[in-house]
Amino acid sequence: MKDKFRVGLIRVLTTGDEELLNLHGKLLMEKYPMLDVESRCIPDQYEGIHSHELEAVAVPKIVELAKTFRDKDMILVSCADDPGVKEIRAALPGMPVTGGGETTAALAVRYGEKIAVLGIVDYTPKAYERMIPDKLVASRPKGVHSTLDLMTPEGRASCLATAMELKEKGADVIALGCTGLTTIGIAKEIEEATGLPVIDPVLALGAFAAFEAAKKDF
Amino acid sequence: MKDKFRVGLIRVLTTGDEELLNLHGKLLMEKYPMLDVESRCIPDQYEGIHSHELEAVAVPKIVELAKTFRDKDMILVSCADDPGVKEIRAALPGMPVTGGGETTAALAVRYGEKIAVLGIVDYTPKAYERMIPDKLVASRPKGVHSTLDLMTPEGRASCLATAMELKEKGADVIALGCTGLTTIGIAKEIEEATGLPVIDPVLALGAFAAFEAAKKDF
Repeated sequence: MKDKFRVGLIRVLTTGDEELLNLHGKLLMEKYPMLDVESRCIPDQYEGIHSHELEAVAVPKIVELAKTFRDKDMILVSCADDPGVKEIRAALPGMPVTGGGETTAALAVRYGEKIAVLGIVDYTPKAYERMIPDKLVASRPKGVHSTLDLMTPEGRASCLATAMELKEKGADVIALGCTGLTTIGIAKEIEEATGLPVIDPVLALGAFAAFEAAKKDF
Repeated sequence: MKDKFRVGLIRVLTTGDEELLNLHGKLLMEKYPMLDVESRCIPDQYEGIHSHELEAVAVPKIVELAKTFRDKDMILVSCADDPGVKEIRAALPGMPVTGGGETTAALAVRYGEKIAVLGIVDYTPKAYERMIPDKLVASRPKGVHSTLDLMTPEGRASCLATAMELKEKGADVIALGCTGLTTIGIAKEIEEATGLPVIDPVLALGAFAAFEAAKKDF
């Protein structure tokens, strides 16, 4: 097997828990074995990013962290609102960079014409408004306020109920608008409950990293 | 390593040459090692599909061939116009199915706002008109009439010249509108000549197959 494709994964939730830090990276390596993923988190962001204010605080820290990944083949920002993606591209020209929003939005276009976003905040991740405003039929937070709230039985039940509402609003595909939903591994459960395809943002990041790896030497 | 994801790859160009038959499948397995790809071609389609008439003739043969892939995890149609994709979905409910058009169009949405298609026929592959009509800035054939013409030095030079024209028309990403362009391996050369990202349809198929494999058990 040829050399692996080296990915720097930026976590926007500060944690000292190695297992939580590496959870998305481990999933990526398990599902996409051509990737070698190193995860690092930004400092002092213990609730992640669930408001524009928290995003503004995070972006400079994300760009600084990205610079520590100069030796990688690609940088991924593990967040559905793509914080700092544009800024990293400006700071590191030539480095492939993407985030969990634009990758999920793009994959969703293959699966349906009427895309709904299930997230945790009351604004739609920016990629959807920029890339596919005409396809967006609904965007719904699920009554929690940070990724930490997702890790409860109530959070899980609330996700499934919200997904059913999105289906009733006409969605034919559900895009997960928070990588905290990856952390709780709920995509398959939502697919089974709704019968609709569900796009998980970390798996979407992986698909694009796999594609970048594939096109590197072809 | 867990079991591979079994893909049935439908070639729409009839050939008795095993190497040519398996070329896309081999590329997919090399680039996406979680895939196990078996290639089969439809009968009596020696020029592939480069007109609506040839497509009409091919579709029933594609659906019949797809039925021989019932034991696979996914079926891919290796053609940029997605011939038979809709019909296979109707014939084999529950089977993941996609083609080289809709996958390329979806990935392109991540890479740019102004998408141009470089193909071999004077009509735009149907996925672009259906999925992203507002993002399509140009669609240009390159002066050849079948995938076989691509395999000449003149065919190659003509591709590069056409790609430069598409860039001048404002494209910020180039989608290859013919899997014959994969056969000649020209994506990287076009990227280097134009400085634009280029989406190869077979690699795009692979990215979605890898994504389906990833989401199967997650």
